[in-house]
Amino acid sequence: MNKPDSTTDTVTAALIVIGEEILSGRTRDENISHIARYLTEIGIALQEVRVVRDVEAEIVAAVNALRPRYTYVFTTGGIGPTHDDVTTDAIASAFGVGVEIDPRAVEAMRRGYSGLELTPARLRMARIPYGADLVDNPVSRAPGFMLGNVIVMAGIPRIMQVMLDAVAPRLKKGRPMRSRSIRIEAPEGDVAPGLAAIQAAHADVQIGSYPFFEKSKLGTYVVLRSVDDAALDRVHGALSELIAKERFKASESEADGKS
Amino acid sequence: MNKPDSTTDTVTAALIVIGEEILSGRTRDENISHIARYLTEIGIALQEVRVVRDVEAEIVAAVNALRPRYTYVFTTGGIGPTHDDVTTDAIASAFGVGVEIDPRAVEAMRRGYSGLELTPARLRMARIPYGADLVDNPVSRAPGFMLGNVIVMAGIPRIMQVMLDAVAPRLKKGRPMRSRSIRIEAPEGDVAPGLAAIQAAHADVQIGSYPFFEKSKLGTYVVLRSVDDAALDRVHGALSELIAKERFKASESEADGKS
Repeated sequence: MNKPDSTTDTVTAALIVIGEEILSGRTRDENISHIARYLTEIGIALQEVRVVRDVEAEIVAAVNALRPRYTYVFTTGGIGPTHDDVTTDAIASAFGVGVEIDPRAVEAMRRGYSGLELTPARLRMARIPYGADLVDNPVSRAPGFMLGNVIVMAGIPRIMQVMLDAVAPRLKKGRPMRSRSIRIEAPEGDVAPGLAAIQAAHADVQIGSYPFFEKSKLGTYVVLRSVDDAALDRVHGALSELIAKERFKASESEADGKS
Repeated sequence: MNKPDSTTDTVTAALIVIGEEILSGRTRDENISHIARYLTEIGIALQEVRVVRDVEAEIVAAVNALRPRYTYVFTTGGIGPTHDDVTTDAIASAFGVGVEIDPRAVEAMRRGYSGLELTPARLRMARIPYGADLVDNPVSRAPGFMLGNVIVMAGIPRIMQVMLDAVAPRLKKGRPMRSRSIRIEAPEGDVAPGLAAIQAAHADVQIGSYPFFEKSKLGTYVVLRSVDDAALDRVHGALSELIAKERFKASESEADGKS
């Protein structure tokens, strides 16, 4: 499941965002950026995201393609009570297991749904695949679940976020990715050759280059990423030498926490 | 390439967003929602999105998985001048063709890059796979390209958007998806059974249900989508009957253009 990284045992993840409303443009997805930042902070490397329709076959295909490749697969969306919520059945189908109303889920919902009747429609949300563990939902009570290495969460951002908080303690974490941002007041094209040389000499640090345009001038953010602070220092040093040699104007970005 | 829809010839698309910075959470992607809305408006159905790293093998795998399945595949990102821009080589590799500096691209860049030297690094952006058509970039001049049914664009939103405008006239369009939004002041669970019955009776209209929480009350947006106005009217009528029967409080959402 884990693709070993040559420098460290990396804990990896993929995310499947389930929702026609994102593909139609009706809803702008917030979950990808939240989950990406969250996982980076706890040392899990998100390496692929797929956005698919609320179609069982699509979800099954994505789940089965991704779960052998990554330590964890997260899904968002499609676990509500309506006919277009097909994720639970899709996950069960992907694993070849059955689905039934889970008494633990019913209990969680009974505690939370005071005043609202647990109708058959609502009880759809207590349908959980065999063998799954529940993921707590303190906001609206209908739980998410984890089956094998697949964590199935709500699509509504507020609810997804509490489910992610609830499941995070159970997950393996890798060494957190550390990053440094250096802002260079020169166009990418001018920075590129020197940067390529540094990257070639330092395979253990990811060097990303992000152009920007401000006050009619082209500039470049260089972002260094590694789990290893010493390696980061080495590359940071090499970059400082490049900047001095080329007489670039440059500054450290604030530790913006961004990776 | 086209998966024929049972009700109409649908023009479909997938999008590959190439960028480590989105997977790390450093950058929040804007391109998915822009492209999703844009394609919906011109009658192209976006059916899958993948976000992958700036790794040639990942891009090749995604391109080759998606290009037989959809009418068009769009990519964003990775066509700049730096070492981490590997998209052009990946696309060429996916198609099994060579790459070389394209005189048409050099000419476009020469016209635009007044004052900036066309260094070897910048000329990387004039490397185009054999057989590709160029996609104009009036903002920063380095062109995108189209090879087969794959349209390769910049990652920077402003530049991607003008490339999409430039290529759109060349694309086949389907019948635009039309939509209606009805806001129901009742929780999804209460709406679900009646909605399921309507969906079962009307396969030619997509019915989506989106819960919301406002002023301590649960509500549900129902979104009806179809290329066929008459079918929409039928389902809208059935929904109005359901609302009356269940005595839900409901209102039409403004024609918000959202699908």
